Formats: sequence, C-alpha cells, structure tokens
Amino acid sequence: MTYTVPERIRQLYDQVSDFVEDRIIPQEKLLLDETSPESESIRAQLMNEAKEEGLWALGHPESMGGGGLSWLDYAYINEVIGRSDPAMNILGTYSVQTCVMIDAVADEWQRENVLLPAVRGEHHVAFAVTEPGAASSDPTNITTTAYLDGDEWVVDGRKWYTSGATTSEWLCVMCRTEGEDVPRHHRFSMILVPSEAEGFHVERDIFVMGTHSNHPECSYRDVRVPKGYLLGKRGGGFELFQTRLAPARLTNCMRWIGQAQRAFDLMCNRINTRELRDGALLATKQLMQFYVYQSYTEIQAARLMVLDAAEKMDQGSQGRVEISAAKTYAANMLQSVLDRAIQVHGALGVCDDTPLERMYRFARIYRIVDGPDEVHIERVGKEILKIYRDGGRWGFSER
Amino acid sequence: MTYTVPERIRQLYDQVSDFVEDRIIPQEKLLLDETSPESESIRAQLMNEAKEEGLWALGHPESMGGGGLSWLDYAYINEVIGRSDPAMNILGTYSVQTCVMIDAVADEWQRENVLLPAVRGEHHVAFAVTEPGAASSDPTNITTTAYLDGDEWVVDGRKWYTSGATTSEWLCVMCRTEGEDVPRHHRFSMILVPSEAEGFHVERDIFVMGTHSNHPECSYRDVRVPKGYLLGKRGGGFELFQTRLAPARLTNCMRWIGQAQRAFDLMCNRINTRELRDGALLATKQLMQFYVYQSYTEIQAARLMVLDAAEKMDQGSQGRVEISAAKTYAANMLQSVLDRAIQVHGALGVCDDTPLERMYRFARIYRIVDGPDEVHIERVGKEILKIYRDGGRWGFSER
Amino acid sequence: MTYTVPERIRQLYDQVSDFVEDRIIPQEKLLLDETSPESESIRAQLMNEAKEEGLWALGHPESMGGGGLSWLDYAYINEVIGRSDPAMNILGTYSVQTCVMIDAVADEWQRENVLLPAVRGEHHVAFAVTEPGAASSDPTNITTTAYLDGDEWVVDGRKWYTSGATTSEWLCVMCRTEGEDVPRHHRFSMILVPSEAEGFHVERDIFVMGTHSNHPECSYRDVRVPKGYLLGKRGGGFELFQTRLAPARLTNCMRWIGQAQRAFDLMCNRINTRELRDGALLATKQLMQFYVYQSYTEIQAARLMVLDAAEKMDQGSQGRVEISAAKTYAANMLQSVLDRAIQVHGALGVCDDTPLERMYRFARIYRIVDGPDEVHIERVGKEILKIYRDGGRWGFSER
Amino acid sequence: MTYTVPERIRQLYDQVSDFVEDRIIPQEKLLLDETSPESESIRAQLMNEAKEEGLWALGHPESMGGGGLSWLDYAYINEVIGRSDPAMNILGTYSVQTCVMIDAVADEWQRENVLLPAVRGEHHVAFAVTEPGAASSDPTNITTTAYLDGDEWVVDGRKWYTSGATTSEWLCVMCRTEGEDVPRHHRFSMILVPSEAEGFHVERDIFVMGTHSNHPECSYRDVRVPKGYLLGKRGGGFELFQTRLAPARLTNCMRWIGQAQRAFDLMCNRINTRELRDGALLATKQLMQFYVYQSYTEIQAARLMVLDAAEKMDQGSQGRVEISAAKTYAANMLQSVLDRAIQVHGALGVCDDTPLERMYRFARIYRIVDGPDEVHIERVGKEILKIYRDGGRWGFSER
Repeated sequence: MTYTVPERIRQLYDQVSDFVEDRIIPQEKLLLDETSPESESIRAQLMNEAKEEGLWALGHPESMGGGGLSWLDYAYINEVIGRSDPAMNILGTYSVQTCVMIDAVADEWQRENVLLPAVRGEHHVAFAVTEPGAASSDPTNITTTAYLDGDEWVVDGRKWYTSGATTSEWLCVMCRTEGEDVPRHHRFSMILVPSEAEGFHVERDIFVMGTHSNHPECSYRDVRVPKGYLLGKRGGGFELFQTRLAPARLTNCMRWIGQAQRAFDLMCNRINTRELRDGALLATKQLMQFYVYQSYTEIQAARLMVLDAAEKMDQGSQGRVEISAAKTYAANMLQSVLDRAIQVHGALGVCDDTPLERMYRFARIYRIVDGPDEVHIERVGKEILKIYRDGGRWGFSER
Repeated sequence: MTYTVPERIRQLYDQVSDFVEDRIIPQEKLLLDETSPESESIRAQLMNEAKEEGLWALGHPESMGGGGLSWLDYAYINEVIGRSDPAMNILGTYSVQTCVMIDAVADEWQRENVLLPAVRGEHHVAFAVTEPGAASSDPTNITTTAYLDGDEWVVDGRKWYTSGATTSEWLCVMCRTEGEDVPRHHRFSMILVPSEAEGFHVERDIFVMGTHSNHPECSYRDVRVPKGYLLGKRGGGFELFQTRLAPARLTNCMRWIGQAQRAFDLMCNRINTRELRDGALLATKQLMQFYVYQSYTEIQAARLMVLDAAEKMDQGSQGRVEISAAKTYAANMLQSVLDRAIQVHGALGVCDDTPLERMYRFARIYRIVDGPDEVHIERVGKEILKIYRDGGRWGFSER
Repeated sequence: MTYTVPERIRQLYDQVSDFVEDRIIPQEKLLLDETSPESESIRAQLMNEAKEEGLWALGHPESMGGGGLSWLDYAYINEVIGRSDPAMNILGTYSVQTCVMIDAVADEWQRENVLLPAVRGEHHVAFAVTEPGAASSDPTNITTTAYLDGDEWVVDGRKWYTSGATTSEWLCVMCRTEGEDVPRHHRFSMILVPSEAEGFHVERDIFVMGTHSNHPECSYRDVRVPKGYLLGKRGGGFELFQTRLAPARLTNCMRWIGQAQRAFDLMCNRINTRELRDGALLATKQLMQFYVYQSYTEIQAARLMVLDAAEKMDQGSQGRVEISAAKTYAANMLQSVLDRAIQVHGALGVCDDTPLERMYRFARIYRIVDGPDEVHIERVGKEILKIYRDGGRWGFSER
Repeated sequence: MTYTVPERIRQLYDQVSDFVEDRIIPQEKLLLDETSPESESIRAQLMNEAKEEGLWALGHPESMGGGGLSWLDYAYINEVIGRSDPAMNILGTYSVQTCVMIDAVADEWQRENVLLPAVRGEHHVAFAVTEPGAASSDPTNITTTAYLDGDEWVVDGRKWYTSGATTSEWLCVMCRTEGEDVPRHHRFSMILVPSEAEGFHVERDIFVMGTHSNHPECSYRDVRVPKGYLLGKRGGGFELFQTRLAPARLTNCMRWIGQAQRAFDLMCNRINTRELRDGALLATKQLMQFYVYQSYTEIQAARLMVLDAAEKMDQGSQGRVEISAAKTYAANMLQSVLDRAIQVHGALGVCDDTPLERMYRFARIYRIVDGPDEVHIERVGKEILKIYRDGGRWGFSER
C-alpha cells in the first residue's frame, strides 16, 4: 500500500480520471435527470466507449470478464469513479459486490444466464433483503418465506429498499426456507426471481431524501420459480449475504472518498473566487482556512483506512475491524465535508446549480445502509477489546 | 422570562397546541403535497377555523389586527406552531416580519391595500432582496436598480430566493436608487411591485434540497410602478431591511425549536419501541441514551437563548448579540437533533414515511438564510469583545 | 427564575462580587500556596471580614445559622464565589452539602458538637465514602465495615479521595453494618469518626493532576467510637448519602460557571490586547471570534440548566434529570472554555502566571467526581425515555 | 511507506520495543522523580546499555555518529520510544532536531566541541528562542540583542521556556544582530552561549501544568562570548531556526502517537477488567466501545499523516502542509485519546497511580509549542488554497 497512486496503475488511473472528468461530468446533470429522453442514449453511448477503451468493470474478477484489479488497486481507481454518480453505471462497476456473491455459488446455468450478462451490463440483478418493520441490522429477522412445492419454490413476502428493482431483470431474494429445528443462521436461502414472474409487484417507489429513489417497496405473492433458481444451497442465504457485504461496504467507501474530494475541490475553488462585501476574497477568512484544514485531514484519514482495509482483503483477511471502521468513518467524513462545502457556497450550495446538495442528501443515507454507524462502532469496539482480552494489542506491532 | 409556560398564556398555548396536534398534523402530508387537489381547500378550511377560534396572526401587533403577543409570549406559542410547517400559514403567522417592516413606514394607501390584507391572509407580499452573484451577507452589494421616470419608478434587475413569489400579489423589491454621492447604506430603496406588473417574470423555480422550493429566481425588466409604491423614504431601504431582520430571525428560531422538539418526541418514541435482533428494545443501548442526553441539552440551550433574545426585544434592545447567537445556535441544534432522530429511525428515517427527512433537508438551509453561521459568529465575537474593550463584562452582572 | 440577577438579591450579589474581586482574587495565589506561612493568617482575616459583613455561609439554611438563600438565589451568588477557589472557604460555603445532610438526622448532641461548629467554620467534617478498587458510581460496592461491640462501633476499612481529611476534626464514614438478610440499599450506615481516634491513619496524600490534593487515602483499623456517633439510623447510610448528593452536585455546578466566566473574561481581555507579528490584535482573527461565540453559548447553556435545576429543588422536586444534565453539561463546558482560554494565552496559559492552568487541571476531575459523565448521561437518557414510555413528553408542556 | 512495520527495520523495532517495555517502563516512575537520588544512576546505566546494544541516537544522521535511519523508518521506531518519556533521553534521540540544525552550519571547532558531544549525550545544548511578551508564532518579534564588541559578541535579553536550560552546557540563543536596513528575516543570528558564562542567569523555573518544568526563564546581561561562537552566518538565525523546525515537529508527532497508543492499551485493558455494580464488565457498555472506536480511528489517522510527512521529508520536500497538518492533528488526537483513557479510569485516572494524568497535562502544551494550532491551521488552509489558485488540486493525483 502506498499513499500515492502506484506506478503499476498510473496510466489506467489517468485514463479513468480523464473519462470521468471530460466525458461524464459535463453530461452529469442530464444523466441524472430521469425525465430526460436523451439521458438513456447518452448513457448507452458512454458505456460503449468505456467498453471499447478497456475501462469496463475494472474491479470485477478476470474469471468473469472483469478488469481483475486487486482490491487495493481498485481503491485508487474507484475513488475517481466515485466523483460522479453516473460513472458507476457507465463504467460497469456498480454490480461488483452482487457478481462476486453469485460467482461464489452459481451453477453453470446461473453463471451463463444471470452472472455473465450482469457483468457485461446487459441486465441488472437487484438484491432484496431489507424488509419494512424488521431491524435490518440483523438479517435473521426477515419474514419473507419460500417453500418447495414440487419442482417450484413459492415465495411470499414484502421487501423494501430493493435498489434498482424497477429496472432489473432479476432479483436475489433472501427468504426463510427452513424451520425452527435448524440453527438461526441456517434458516435462510437466496432465491433468484425474474422480475416478470407472476405475483411480483413493485408496490411503490420510496421517496428518499427528496428524490424518487428507485429503492422501491416490492411484494411477492405466491411467486413461483423453478427449483433450480435457488442460489447456492438451502440454508446458505445468510452466509452468501455475508460474502457480498465486505465488498459492498468497501467499494462504497472508495466512491465516497471520490465524492468528498470533488466537494473539496469545489469548496477550495469557491473560497478562492468568492468576493465579500469589501472585495476581499473568502480565502482571507480564517474560518475558511479552518474548513480546508478539517476537510483535508478527514479525507486523508478516510483514505488511509480504506486503503488499509483493501490491502487486508487482498491478503485474505476478513478485515472486520478495518472495514467497519472505514465504512463508518468514511460515511461521516463525507457528510461533514459536504456540509462545509455547502456552507461555503451559501444559497448556491443548497440548490441544484451545483452537485453538492444532491451528494449531501444521499450522504445521509450512507450512515444507515450496510449497517448503521452504531452497529459498526459496537463491532469495532468489541473486536478490538477482544484482541486485548486475548493478550494482544491493536496497533503497528502485535506483540 | 420563565422556563415553563407562563400562566398568562397557558390557555392560549394549550389551544394552539391542540389545534396543531389534532387538526394540522393529521393532514400534514396532504397539506405539503402541492400536487394534491384537496390541499388548498383543506388549508382554507383550517384557516377559517383558526380565525374563528381567535388563533390567527397571534404574533402580529394589535394595531394591525393581530394577536398582540409580546415577543416573549409569542416565543412559547410559536414554538408549538413550528412543530408543523403548514401551521405557519394556517395560523397566519408567516407574514409577521414583513408586516412589521411595512407597518413602520406605510402611508395610508399602502396600509389599506398592502399591509392589512396581508395580515388577514387575503394576499401575500414576497420579499425580494437576495441576488444571484452577490454575497447576500451584505445587501449593499445588490445590483437591481430603480429610477424615477416622471411619476413612475422603473425597476431593472434579477433576484433569486424570493420566497413565495409565485403565489404573491406583491413584491417588496430592494433597489439601488441613489448614486455614489450618497453614503453606501443610503443608496437603496424598497419598492412595492405588483406581481402582475409588465416586465416581471418568474424565470425558474429553484430546486432546493430536493424540492420545488417556491423560492424562485425572478427578473424585472423595465417594470414600471407608480411613484407612490415607494415604501418609506428614498435611500431608506437598507434601514427598512434591518427592521425586518431581527423579527425574521427570532420568529424562525422559535419555530425551529418546535421542530426539534417534535423530532425529539419521535426519536424517544422510536427508541422506546424498536426491537433489536434479540427482542431487546433500542432503549437499552447506551448510545441511544447518549443521543437523548445530547438532544435534550441542545434543545434546552437553544430555548433559553431564544427566550432571552425575545425578552431583550420586548425591552426595546436590538439584542444583536442575543439574536445572532440564538439564530446560529438554534439552526445548528436543529440540524443535529434531526440527524440523530433520523439515525435512530434507520431506513424509515431517510424516506418520507416520517416528517424527519423533509425537516432535515430544510434545516440545512437555515444555517445559510438570514445570514450564514460565519457572519453571525463573527458578529457575536466582535460585539462581545467590544464590550470588554470598553471595560465591561458579558455575563450576569455587567460591572 | 430570571436570567438576570433578581432585584431581591442584587445588593448581596454586588457585595459578594466586590469581596471576591477586590479582596480574595488579589491574594489568591498566596492563599493557594500551602507552603506559604502567611496563607493561613490571610485566610483567617478574610473569613472574619466575611462574617462581619454578613457574607458567611449564605447558602446554609437559616435554622443552622446560615444565610438561608433559596437554591435559586444561591445559584446567582455562588457563581460569583466560584470565580476564585479560596472564596469557597473564606465565605463559608464549602460545607453546605455535608451540613444539609447532617441536619437531616442529627440528634441534639451531634447538632451542637458536629453540625453547628462546622457551619461556623470552627472545624471541618470530611466525607468518606469512595474506596480504591470499588466502582464509586455505586456506593453499595463499598467494603469498609463497622460492627457494634457493646457500646462502641468498630470501624475497619480503607477510603480514598476523602477530601480535606488531613485538616478535618471529624469524618463521616460510610460503613457496611448490616448483613445479607437486609436489602442491598439498607446495609450501610454513616458513622462519625473523630480524626484523632486511634486506628485512623492518613496513609498517603494522593497526587492529583500535578498537585498535592488533600484528597488522601485513609485507613481505619479497629477504630472505636461511641454508639451515639451513628449518624441517623442503622442501614440509613445510603439514603443519607443521597440527601447530600443533589446539593453537592448543584453547588459545584454553580461554582464551575463562575470559573468559566472568569476564564472567559481573561480570554476576551487577552484577545483584545495581544499583538500578532504585524501589530494587529488577536481580536482581528476569525477563529478568536469563534472561540468567543462558542464559549459564550456554552456558558449560557450551562447557566440555564443550573438555574432550572435550582428552581426545581426549591419546588421540592428531586430534579434528577435536571441535576444530572446540569452537572455533566457544566463540567464539560468548563473544560472546553478553559481549554480555549489557555490556547488563546499560549505559553502564558500553560504556566501558573495565570489561574487558567490550575483551573484546567482540576476541571478534568469534575467530569469524574459525583458520578462520571457516563453515569449521568445514562440516567438522563433513561429517565426521559421513561417519561415518554408513560405517555408523557419532556419539554415545555407536558401534555 | 507501508502501514505495517517494514521488514527492513522489523528486528530493530522489536529490540527498541523490548527495551522500552521491559527496561524503561518498569523504572519509569523513578526515572521521572527528580527528587529521587537513584534516578540519575539508573538513567546512566540504561543509557550505557542502549549504547552497547546499538540503540543509541537511531534517528541522528550517520555522519555525526547516529543510527542514520530515514525519517520514515525513524517514524516507526520513534513511536515506540515515545511510549515512555524517559526513553527519549535514555535512547539519545531527544537532541536530533538541534543536532541537525547545528550540523547544517557548524565549523570544525563547533562540530568537535558542541555537536559531537551532544550526539553522544555527553552534554546538552538548549535552544533559546521564545521570549515572554513576544508572540512566539513569529520569531522575528524577538528582542534579545547581540552586538560585536571587538572579538566578542555581547548578548542582552530575556528568554523563557528554554527547555533543559538548567542541565545544559550550551545554549543556542537567537539574537537580533542586524539593523532596520536589513530585511526582517535577516536581522537575527544564532549564538552559542556556554551556561557558565558570566551574566547568564536562570531566573526562575516556570511551573508548567503543575510541574517543575525545566523550561526556565533565563536572563542574559552583557554576556560575552568569543566571535567564533556565532553559529552559521550573521543574519542567518531565522533560516537556521527553520531548519530545526520541521524535524522538531515531526519527531514530536512520532512520540505522541506512541503515547496515545500506550494510553489506548491502558484504556482497553481497563475496559476489559473493570467491574460495574452488578459484576458486569465496563466492556459491555456501548459508550466504552464508542471510545475505543473513536480513539482507534484518531490514532490511525494521525499515524498516516506522520508517515506521509516523514516520507515527504525523505524525498527532499519541505512538506509544509503535511507537517503542519500532522503536528496539529496529532497533538489534538493525543489530548482526546488521553481524555478518554482518563475518563475510563475514573478516580484512578486523575491521580499519579497511572501515567495517564501526567501525559494528559503535558499533552495540553503540545497544542501550543512549535506553533499553536491556529497558526498551523491557517498555514494548511492557505497553502492548499494556493495550490488550487495555481490550477492544481490537492489529493492523490495532481492533474
């Protein structure tokens, strides 16, 4: 791990960086406008360019047709992708955590028909775990059920915050399939449901932080799918879910740092150019210098933790402490960096003439998804305390 | 000033409280939905009820037909009104700062045709000062001009964040009317412009924190109004603006405390009822108790400062330090109380199934409008330091 | 409760204020220097003056010869006394919590021989509860025992942080006197031990935050005292301890606000006079204005909470939430106000050329004594949540 | 730079680590007790052992007889040395910044007689710049003068916070030697003064944060030293001072991280073993887990910044932003980690039964020495803003 972009990926880093800055960001507002008719064709055009230039799915394993970057190298690249929300789709990286999960257990048919088209961006696979009313910090609370009826699974239940459900061809649905006789963590299975299946309904879009979110609430009523749509083995749903979690958290963090860095860039430029009443620049104000100092140190700290966690993942560690700490610290960092960037922009900062207010609204969600702050704080504390209890020490040198 | 609701207004306090809790909040979501056809009729119905029950315009001076509460008494009542955004309109209090300002200088015609209908809620008067591109922390930066051409003022310029402009019959427009020969703070005048005047255009709604804001950007191109539409005297615009500022800031603070208290109520109820994985309640978690402690102390602190500033206003003081400190502290308090309330609600907190996410998005604006934090912080610091420089002391006892 | 000093105590307030500013503070450094031979005689002289001028023991009830101020009125006065540490002794207020406790249960002999001389400052009564090794957040953990042997109590154990033990004639010692058959909170009794009793030893002074603290560690080995030295009834020790706690916490808070206000005064004066490299004053720096703003709002907030809690005590309420919140908030406020005052003084701030560094070191202790932050935070959270669970609301208006 | 201890220094790291843990820390309290007669001989014994085992002066350049570690490698080693205050002397590292400075300009005589004995720990060289009354954030404010009288420099003035002055053979004294005709930053020269010179007096020890500091205030009255005692060239004092500053700041930061890590170790062990009233461990409390999380992330963040700054120094960069940010962040981090560690220890934490209270008191000084927070914050802000003004970007990739 090094703190500057390693030489081995320097060229790739610059390519991706140019692509995001020069081709995506100038079109960003259009790309984010779901009501715009051009939006879809521009996105498709840029996706093609990304594929042609070898910038597609860089973080996916090579075995499934991805770029095969290590987690550490991907951290540098993904930070740049994170600078603009549409880049995640255009460069084909958004599906990495789900693809890694499917890859771990998919049979041949699932691989050909679900996984590989997802890697290539030909269709989407939504991930349906969270339910209204159940504390999602523990997925063993979920109540959606499935049972085998002959050669078919029959799925019943209700999920919400199923990101991308309205535009997905497939849903990975976590269902309770086993009874009380089985240990708690082995009662759940992951079942693939095609979105065109009868009995599947998108009930409502959830209006999240002022925006139609495409994180809808969906119902499953007697949805029947072939027996072979079980992903992995019966009772293996929870374990599979865990497989997806670490990459999901880590790749999100990488992008958040990119967003924070972009907000920091905007903030510094605003401070350097905004005139006060007497013609002096904002830059002459000590509180502005303080905001720069605070934001810089917070961004650097988050970067370190993410790079460190990525390196641990590459080394085969679960990195529980590192990923939980990085996720929590980075989400909070993003919120506070954006808060300052908005403050410095004044009335301009709270309206959509800059990307800041949208990033700020969505940043609030990140402290809740993939485990709320409190769950991660508790985990980090408990894991470190356990190390000391076992006679170890947490720091450079574990004696 | 007392910390509990004074006996003299206890009955009124309870009446307003019941009105807000029992009649407004149950309809709140509908009232806030601008696309709903029923929204307007429900609002009109509730406004009538408020008038009939003597709960209309309680903070406006009696001389203009208002309830005539002192600022201090109004602070208690207005906190309750603040609990629900639509209450401000339904109980006729939103116009108090503009009415106080107009009242200070209006001639008979202006009083009958602009002021009194506004107090009665028969029409709206928008306030147009802020301009894109000019640091609004100093209104002497504004560039909209007006000149006398015979018996008419001709207004030219562009304003943004003109709250309520699309639904207002009148606009109070701050214009530069005087030349360089006049001292800086005497170069501006306030001119009344009817929204139907030729040359006035709402250029665009500004999309603020995810919402159509009704804080639009408006242009004035050769807008001609009669000479008598000048409000107050030539060159008196800045002073008039100042008249409005203290009541505007203070009444906003009162309502923010009501919003924070409502968020606190929701947070405590959620903590008391949400089950964790093992059936234990959130209430058993020490971090939850910490959030309650933090939120409680912050709300109390803000309340004190607002009550203290209101009392100072009643005593005829300008209360510059008190109002600046209260405004800044209360806006930050609201943001952090809402942040915790959302966190405690998890996925439910970031979607519009509760009022929290909307309050949270708007709370971010309050740290910028009516002077950003930094301007008030600087003012509080400078004013207190000046008192010490003059041999005084800021505290209980000025020796 | 009012936010400015009430007229009814204005004259007294000014008298005490002048006494502290003009007579104690100029001698403060000498008074705090335990190695100085003059220290004791100056203190005695000032104590006499205080008594002659009617400024002695103002917060003690009239029935025991004190000033008889209500808790609320005492809050205003005690803030001023808090400005200088020696004032607490010189004005005879330090013993109020112990005297109130003794007064609740003392028999005639105890009243004449222990209580009244303590009120008059003729001797000291130390309070011995805390023990090394026992979590003092729960006094039912204590291990010091006493048993009746004929007409004598025999006390055995070890206490630390017995404030003032080396200069006290009496010690109130919390002992376990009852067996397992008695409920936990009724197993302890308070026993009066004269410091000259055989078997009582001051084992070591505890060096606290860089200073000989006079909070020594003491041992009791077969200490025998007459049966009549039991204070209150057998098994009533814990309840008696509770009696003392609320006044102790509250009167400490009052003084902390005085210390913070003094630090604030010093900070403002330093900012107003310290020159930077280019001859400009520190006062021109925005971060300095920020420190003033922050300190001012924190001090005001703490003051409110203390006044509110004092009023509740006068009304006969236990004020558990109010006192716990005030104690915790005020102790943290004092630490952060002092931290800023030191920072502003630079090298001067960390040495004993100003009173700041001493106040800062001791302030750190206040977040631990009388219950650490965490215990109070937990209590405030739990108590407020309980109110909501019972259908109430915590705020202005309990509906 | 790597985040784990690099293999190339792993063995050395372990050696130093063992030396500090096994030989210094068990004797630490004795070593810190200046009144103890054994203190000096134990220190001498340990110094000999360190020299014999090749652990002496590891961070000094090889050319002057030191260990010749790069700044980056030294960062890992020096963190461990920082765990115990006496280790800095015993391992001969405390003089590195002054030796580097002298080395830059010393002539042969100065090298043999002042520099090399200092490296070998045979005598001490104190550094005398700061003056009472002058804002030390800008050393061009200093008023001590020196003039050439024949072959002698005559030094007059007063300095304070001259660390180690009472035990030093030499003092490096910053004096004004040039007139107004010379640019401000070229008016000062560094002059070597032997402590036995006539006219040099230690006026008083400064009592800093409760401790006799050996940072005394010293006067120079007509102190005469040979012309050849000028260090470097006339007018070069300020530049020389700058040479020393970066290493001084950076090596302090390294040690602070070691102190924080030690406090963290103590905190975790305490949380793991302290019982609450009901026999449960502190470790079960969520606020304790929160303290662990906070402390861990702060320590990691500080470490990163220090390693990054050290690497930049090795690359020949001045690292102004990196060092200023690291110094400020690390000093604040140390204060807050210690604050939590003390809180967790309760009454034990504020007395000298643990090393925490001493570390805490001294940590407060670090936010002031070598430039107060505010000066560094301003610098970091200004430097980063300048980069943006010049069209750059501060982050991974400078485009």
